[in-house]
Amino acid sequence: MKPLNTYIDHTLLKPDSTVEQMLALCQEADRYRFASVCLLPWHVARAIEALQGTGIPVCTVVGFPLGASTTATKVAETTEAVRQGAREIDMVISLTALKSRHYDEVFTDIRAVVEAAHAEAALVKVIIETCLLTDDEKKRMCAAVTQAGAEYIKTSTGFSTGGATIADVALLRANVGPHVLVKASGGIRDRETAVAMIEAGADRIGTSSGIAIVTAS
Amino acid sequence: MKPLNTYIDHTLLKPDSTVEQMLALCQEADRYRFASVCLLPWHVARAIEALQGTGIPVCTVVGFPLGASTTATKVAETTEAVRQGAREIDMVISLTALKSRHYDEVFTDIRAVVEAAHAEAALVKVIIETCLLTDDEKKRMCAAVTQAGAEYIKTSTGFSTGGATIADVALLRANVGPHVLVKASGGIRDRETAVAMIEAGADRIGTSSGIAIVTAS
Repeated sequence: MKPLNTYIDHTLLKPDSTVEQMLALCQEADRYRFASVCLLPWHVARAIEALQGTGIPVCTVVGFPLGASTTATKVAETTEAVRQGAREIDMVISLTALKSRHYDEVFTDIRAVVEAAHAEAALVKVIIETCLLTDDEKKRMCAAVTQAGAEYIKTSTGFSTGGATIADVALLRANVGPHVLVKASGGIRDRETAVAMIEAGADRIGTSSGIAIVTAS
Repeated sequence: MKPLNTYIDHTLLKPDSTVEQMLALCQEADRYRFASVCLLPWHVARAIEALQGTGIPVCTVVGFPLGASTTATKVAETTEAVRQGAREIDMVISLTALKSRHYDEVFTDIRAVVEAAHAEAALVKVIIETCLLTDDEKKRMCAAVTQAGAEYIKTSTGFSTGGATIADVALLRANVGPHVLVKASGGIRDRETAVAMIEAGADRIGTSSGIAIVTAS
């Protein structure tokens, strides 16, 4: 296993998070050399500036957390973020489309965001909100995310009824293509849980508890 | 007091709501003659079609529920929705900007959405998420919403730590300009609560329990 800090997206997604809190997050990410900072779109421009010269990439969220924006809105949100300098886009799938069995629409929605992000060489993590899906739906999403050319599949927004589980991480790992990575997020608050997620197949951990995780003995 | 049904935005904002559930909501809104249906952006186009000829307007949400999209994204989302035919836009303010004391940015964000909506003669309700604000911040928002020319101020998304309270509805009523209306939403599930909100100054009630409210004896 690589050093734990390199797995962690250092995350602040509270709707009332301030510029001050965002700046502290960026400093911490540099100090602990986390994989990225993950922030709300409103914070992106200032975070890019704060992280200049550190090599820490900015990750932001699209269609978050309900996934029910239209594809056009998700593409506009993605394009603005990557042009501002965000290097990672965590998008939420259209859960309305999935639950309505409009599978083509779920795919074209993911694919459109992937194209918009790749146009500026940003990578995409596709949040499928596992707590709301059946295992069959999770497997369908593994196929769709693989086919759409996204870099990651991600379990959870942290704003729904549940977060990442070991079983779901293993299921995603087993069902995505060989080039797709897995991000576990939602409710990961200690080192033991983070390590268990990595052992189950997670390549990235989304958490607000990154410092506690890497400093635990 | 006018008939209760005329106050109610018949609401379905679950992230996993299906086309089938949306169509049922539209039929109910027509049957009970509610003020509007309030739906996620993904459902708008089909809801417009389903409600054709009924006179029931479609309301949708923008920057929902965190309010942390950029202004450009909120404007794009608003423009698409009103061009599709949505007649009411329930937008969430930039809570990140407010809590960071970037008050000008909070105002220009609201104003930009109001302009985009008014371009297609749609009205705007500005959700301030009262449960996250101090009374001073609520009063500031009353002034900003009034100055921005929005038609309504609205208490809550229903996705945060609390919903509408009688005290907040009265506070908003007392602090907005004479032409601004008040929408109470979040946790209003029975007739007694709905009536109390209206008596405190609410002009519109957002609820998923509209039928229970109007059929209670």
